[in-house]
Amino acid sequence: MDFSTDERTEFLKKELVDFMYGHVYPNEEAYKDELGKLENPYAWSESPILQKLRAEARSRGLWNLFLPGEEGAGLTNVQYAPLAEITGRSRMLAPAALNCSAPDTGNMELLAQFGTEEQKEQWLKPLLEGEIRSAFAMTEPAVASSDATNIETSIVRDGDEYVINGRKWFITGAMNPNAKIFIVMGKTNPTAERHRQQSQILVPRDTSGVTIKRAMTIFGYEDHYNGGHAEIVFTDVRVPVGNLIGGEGEGFAIAQARLGPGRIHHCMRAIGMAERAIKMMCERADERVAFGKPLSEQGVIRDWIAESRVRVEQLRLMVLKTAWLMDTVGNKGAHTEIQAIKIATPSTVEWILDKAIQVHGAAGLSQDFFLASAYAYARTIRFADGPDEVHKNALARNELKRQRARRSS
Amino acid sequence: MDFSTDERTEFLKKELVDFMYGHVYPNEEAYKDELGKLENPYAWSESPILQKLRAEARSRGLWNLFLPGEEGAGLTNVQYAPLAEITGRSRMLAPAALNCSAPDTGNMELLAQFGTEEQKEQWLKPLLEGEIRSAFAMTEPAVASSDATNIETSIVRDGDEYVINGRKWFITGAMNPNAKIFIVMGKTNPTAERHRQQSQILVPRDTSGVTIKRAMTIFGYEDHYNGGHAEIVFTDVRVPVGNLIGGEGEGFAIAQARLGPGRIHHCMRAIGMAERAIKMMCERADERVAFGKPLSEQGVIRDWIAESRVRVEQLRLMVLKTAWLMDTVGNKGAHTEIQAIKIATPSTVEWILDKAIQVHGAAGLSQDFFLASAYAYARTIRFADGPDEVHKNALARNELKRQRARRSS
Amino acid sequence: MDFSTDERTEFLKKELVDFMYGHVYPNEEAYKDELGKLENPYAWSESPILQKLRAEARSRGLWNLFLPGEEGAGLTNVQYAPLAEITGRSRMLAPAALNCSAPDTGNMELLAQFGTEEQKEQWLKPLLEGEIRSAFAMTEPAVASSDATNIETSIVRDGDEYVINGRKWFITGAMNPNAKIFIVMGKTNPTAERHRQQSQILVPRDTSGVTIKRAMTIFGYEDHYNGGHAEIVFTDVRVPVGNLIGGEGEGFAIAQARLGPGRIHHCMRAIGMAERAIKMMCERADERVAFGKPLSEQGVIRDWIAESRVRVEQLRLMVLKTAWLMDTVGNKGAHTEIQAIKIATPSTVEWILDKAIQVHGAAGLSQDFFLASAYAYARTIRFADGPDEVHKNALARNELKRQRARRSS
Amino acid sequence: MDFSTDERTEFLKKELVDFMYGHVYPNEEAYKDELGKLENPYAWSESPILQKLRAEARSRGLWNLFLPGEEGAGLTNVQYAPLAEITGRSRMLAPAALNCSAPDTGNMELLAQFGTEEQKEQWLKPLLEGEIRSAFAMTEPAVASSDATNIETSIVRDGDEYVINGRKWFITGAMNPNAKIFIVMGKTNPTAERHRQQSQILVPRDTSGVTIKRAMTIFGYEDHYNGGHAEIVFTDVRVPVGNLIGGEGEGFAIAQARLGPGRIHHCMRAIGMAERAIKMMCERADERVAFGKPLSEQGVIRDWIAESRVRVEQLRLMVLKTAWLMDTVGNKGAHTEIQAIKIATPSTVEWILDKAIQVHGAAGLSQDFFLASAYAYARTIRFADGPDEVHKNALARNELKRQRARRSS
Repeated sequence: MDFSTDERTEFLKKELVDFMYGHVYPNEEAYKDELGKLENPYAWSESPILQKLRAEARSRGLWNLFLPGEEGAGLTNVQYAPLAEITGRSRMLAPAALNCSAPDTGNMELLAQFGTEEQKEQWLKPLLEGEIRSAFAMTEPAVASSDATNIETSIVRDGDEYVINGRKWFITGAMNPNAKIFIVMGKTNPTAERHRQQSQILVPRDTSGVTIKRAMTIFGYEDHYNGGHAEIVFTDVRVPVGNLIGGEGEGFAIAQARLGPGRIHHCMRAIGMAERAIKMMCERADERVAFGKPLSEQGVIRDWIAESRVRVEQLRLMVLKTAWLMDTVGNKGAHTEIQAIKIATPSTVEWILDKAIQVHGAAGLSQDFFLASAYAYARTIRFADGPDEVHKNALARNELKRQRARRSS
Repeated sequence: MDFSTDERTEFLKKELVDFMYGHVYPNEEAYKDELGKLENPYAWSESPILQKLRAEARSRGLWNLFLPGEEGAGLTNVQYAPLAEITGRSRMLAPAALNCSAPDTGNMELLAQFGTEEQKEQWLKPLLEGEIRSAFAMTEPAVASSDATNIETSIVRDGDEYVINGRKWFITGAMNPNAKIFIVMGKTNPTAERHRQQSQILVPRDTSGVTIKRAMTIFGYEDHYNGGHAEIVFTDVRVPVGNLIGGEGEGFAIAQARLGPGRIHHCMRAIGMAERAIKMMCERADERVAFGKPLSEQGVIRDWIAESRVRVEQLRLMVLKTAWLMDTVGNKGAHTEIQAIKIATPSTVEWILDKAIQVHGAAGLSQDFFLASAYAYARTIRFADGPDEVHKNALARNELKRQRARRSS
Repeated sequence: MDFSTDERTEFLKKELVDFMYGHVYPNEEAYKDELGKLENPYAWSESPILQKLRAEARSRGLWNLFLPGEEGAGLTNVQYAPLAEITGRSRMLAPAALNCSAPDTGNMELLAQFGTEEQKEQWLKPLLEGEIRSAFAMTEPAVASSDATNIETSIVRDGDEYVINGRKWFITGAMNPNAKIFIVMGKTNPTAERHRQQSQILVPRDTSGVTIKRAMTIFGYEDHYNGGHAEIVFTDVRVPVGNLIGGEGEGFAIAQARLGPGRIHHCMRAIGMAERAIKMMCERADERVAFGKPLSEQGVIRDWIAESRVRVEQLRLMVLKTAWLMDTVGNKGAHTEIQAIKIATPSTVEWILDKAIQVHGAAGLSQDFFLASAYAYARTIRFADGPDEVHKNALARNELKRQRARRSS
Repeated sequence: MDFSTDERTEFLKKELVDFMYGHVYPNEEAYKDELGKLENPYAWSESPILQKLRAEARSRGLWNLFLPGEEGAGLTNVQYAPLAEITGRSRMLAPAALNCSAPDTGNMELLAQFGTEEQKEQWLKPLLEGEIRSAFAMTEPAVASSDATNIETSIVRDGDEYVINGRKWFITGAMNPNAKIFIVMGKTNPTAERHRQQSQILVPRDTSGVTIKRAMTIFGYEDHYNGGHAEIVFTDVRVPVGNLIGGEGEGFAIAQARLGPGRIHHCMRAIGMAERAIKMMCERADERVAFGKPLSEQGVIRDWIAESRVRVEQLRLMVLKTAWLMDTVGNKGAHTEIQAIKIATPSTVEWILDKAIQVHGAAGLSQDFFLASAYAYARTIRFADGPDEVHKNALARNELKRQRARRSS
């Protein structure tokens, strides 16, 4: 188990930190202002600041770092981990500036791995270039989508086309008009074996029958910065059969494959958020005086700071181990560890953010600090890609199986 | 210790429940829509729906229930408790419809108790009539306001006037243009003994030098329904000396007196929120099926439901005991209990809301359910009127003192 | 809901407190010493100190307070609650001194309610007189006894006798040779409906075929003070048919009836333990100085003291409400509340004891303070009469049912 | 950061596992029986089984693995970590069998590092040979020993001797008559600077004036297996000046140096305990059926199993990182990490043990399973070497300092 950072990572890290201090942090407030002022009907378009940052990042080689192989920066997960963490410190701006923000990353990976040459040419290429954005349409309002087999959207073949009908919501990124392509999960084979009913299909945004109904809010946030979370209705939407990704019935397996890297990226960035929260908690605790001494000398607040440090250190190591396993034995071999970080990250980070907020008082919940919106985000990852409870249940089942095997040996 | 509900309470309860089902719940969605559509420059004005409901409530005798004595409905705290709880179930609409919403309630109590006849005539009367709204301006951005002695706003006498300079924020209700009067806490005697430096003074909204800077958000919410949370700058604001409430140096004591009833009202309403969350959690758990059975048959979710019920029952009893003590031995005699419910309520209710959200999946964080905004509110009461930590510290100091007295007796 | 203490309770409370300070607390150390020195083969007999205290308590009218009706002191649950709490402060000595200790109390209630005249004459009378002790044999090593239908001990009729075969453990009190009678739960009708298979039967200690195998320890404690926790084997044990309590198949229902009062008594006493722990925590925190100030001025310890007070107050109110319900609508009507206090009490009290221990350092885990043994006891009530998880599951089922009924109404 | 196990470690691991299965596990019950039957006055002597196991372990090269350098096995901390973890699975027998049990390990390290040649010859050598045992006498009943500067035992020079007076308790191992040597911490220079007042001195057990008063219990355990926890009085105890370890005033620094490795060994073994608890929890959950299905299919129990796995994985990684830091940058450089594992380990392991106990029902608290005694041990490490709260406070102070440095750079 070796988590050392090599020369290339060190170089990129230095470059990235430089970029953060020189370009990202100084633009955070202006970026929020810009987003706040966007007017209808362009309300969801991207901001000029982001465009400038993307150019700068790309010129520094800080581009597509998430993507292994030749199509991307070719980093391993262990190499990418510390970089992703740093981008998490400025969650609203940095990942997108580096073309490393969800859901585009997962979609690019998916296309790189399962797309046909035509699909790659048409969609992966502009995504890698940062010319367009994308969305992944899975969650449905009518069913418990944590159980992917519940998905009800239908994808029915009709000659050379597939016809799609269904309703999706919380489709992150889809409010952004530049999100030109949606990967839609639905059922092609509703009577097949449970995990062979689903397929994934490419639906261009401007296809007839696609209706963007509204933006869902998370706590009170519309999350302009990442293209919001759309409710989308698909009514008799027709796309050519060539838009299917993989074969019919492979949707569930493809979704699973997509999740591994996606999850670890979420976790890495979340750790960056936690680190920033600790930094802010310490700074505020030093600055504020109550009842005759700085908050940083109050026992309870020290307890929070210590617990925050202890928890985030453990979490980072587990994420690194998972990254190392994914690099060495593959995503499947790291299955349990991926579940473990998916379980541990949201609650750990949420706890730290909650304490950082408390140290800030009401200000911590306001627009003046990144804490409240970060909390909202951390809260969502307690059900993004399935709620904690589902993952715990599955992890326990594996543990029980493993222990049974040991006993009988 | 007797928490029984008497005949009058039973009557009001029945009337209130009837009002809730007949007028409040059916209007919740329309009310949110109406607020969402308010346009600048009237963005913060109140909605027509609220006005209609206020008329209806008043005609039913559901008006000023919070206020003891002849000026109000004359209920005891034990009588008011179950009614306030019911209004908490529709936090955005019901308390305001009954003219029982913070911060007006606290301000009316304060004026009823400490106001001069002129002050009452000018401000209390229209508040009781529901003609105007009000705000209480205490928290400041520059200092840890949990320690009220940190307050820096200056109130300097100059002839027959006081001159006020300072910056306040998170002033709930003040974005509403109908909040015609602000009670401002500042320092008249900065060199006096620590708790005799502060005074409270009435500042009409339209006084020269009062600038409403902006609306603070809580998580992403602007909280239109309650007039938002304003940042306000007071620059050489002049008001007649007659606007002082009580005498110079009495501000701290008056603030303390204001807090007792205010806190218990918060707690009562928060319990109503928790009850609604439990109701929703059960309903959703019954409806949703995952992995072959309804969520309501999953052990972990049952655990949450049971814990929620057990916790809220205990909390309600402690609030009732506190109400009973306030009625029988006075707010001062109930000091420890008021602290205790201030400590226990936010964390209990927050926990329940969190679990109800989790059962709802992403929907629970969205605008489609009351849960996320209720959570945001519950989170704020972890520092409203001072953070939990300050109250715990004080309660422990009392406990230690009490135990010491016992030992030496 | 009225929890007031009436005159009789006030009188008994005063008398009991007087007895505690005059006789119980001063004898605690001597009692432990005496128990520690008991030699084989009388190792489990009762101590002379206890006998003296029983005489004193009885002479003061502090006797059989737990038992309603003419056979006992005739107190309601609301009357008994504060008295039981006081005895819990000296758990090892006070309940037994008042003839109010488990499992005798439950057994006496059971006999008073379901026993025949002969059974009462032979066993209830000497128990009420404090001449003998008793045990209740339910838990079995081979099955998950939290599900009472799992019980495997067989009770087979053979002419005028029942023949009992089975193995029981954790049979509290049974190591005491003066525990002359065991109430044994087993199956008479293994093929009947699930809750009609069980019966309860009286088995005198000295019946042939009864073997006391060994004392089970709880953490490292043998719990001499309450007659330990025995493993007992029943091999072809024959008792007359008249020893059956109630009819065949009524064992489950009788066990359920036994549990209600038993549980609330446990809870009342546990609250007394918690109060003593808080008292000790405060005292120790005042005495010990570390890093330049007494522990009682450390923020984290203040936090524990405050939380302890807040939690125990809520718990006590819920126990009182449950007592009041049992008095007014009966044990069945108080079913949910009995579950609720069974769920809330162990974890609350355990938490408080844990913190009190932490304030005492290693001493808190030793024989020098009552904390560690109290913790061990509190820990056991997380599964005594069924583990928390079973109760939570049942309470949630009821809540779901109740909410369903509301929705459909 | 490289935690890989090298060839030598793999070899020792295999050998150790073999030894555990062949000799340790099969002897656990017999060992407990043997200890239970030891009669006065040899009550605290070691058992023949342990002697046999020590011989076997030594013959396999499983001896003094904890000690780096030539005097011991020469392993690094990263090499020793997985081995120590394995011994923790049978805490009562395995560490002692390998001559790797506290407090001997810390004492040997201390002598190896700070002892004179004479001290090493006289005490280190027989300790390394396993001929004698030892104790470390620091904690005092009269003061909060978590603050080492509180220590009151006096060490006064008188000619060629030091005269020692004081009272110590919870001196682990000292009840064992074979614990021939005590390292005593006291004050030689009570007026010096706070951390220069203390010295450490060797006191042979049989020195005149040394009185072993009694055995302290932990929960109800006397902990025979490790020589118990003694209260010891030192009355005018005289030892030659050559018995001082290091110089006068160096006691505090030496104690600090002793703690680093001691703490990480505790943590490693505690992880082994946790792993065994998880194993048992899974096994029991599979075996027991309640309410129609095995416990292992109940959601709440699955939740515990998953959380246990996730928590122990994170903890182990943090311990490994700490070991790696100690190996590469030294104990001082790993200071924060040593604190972090000292904070995280007890609560994590305690939580897992608590859940494993709950799955076992009452049996889990009894002598039939290792869980309850392991819990008692885990509970003690929440204050061994200073309570968690002291470590958290110190860790937070460092974090605040570190963050301050960053801000100003």
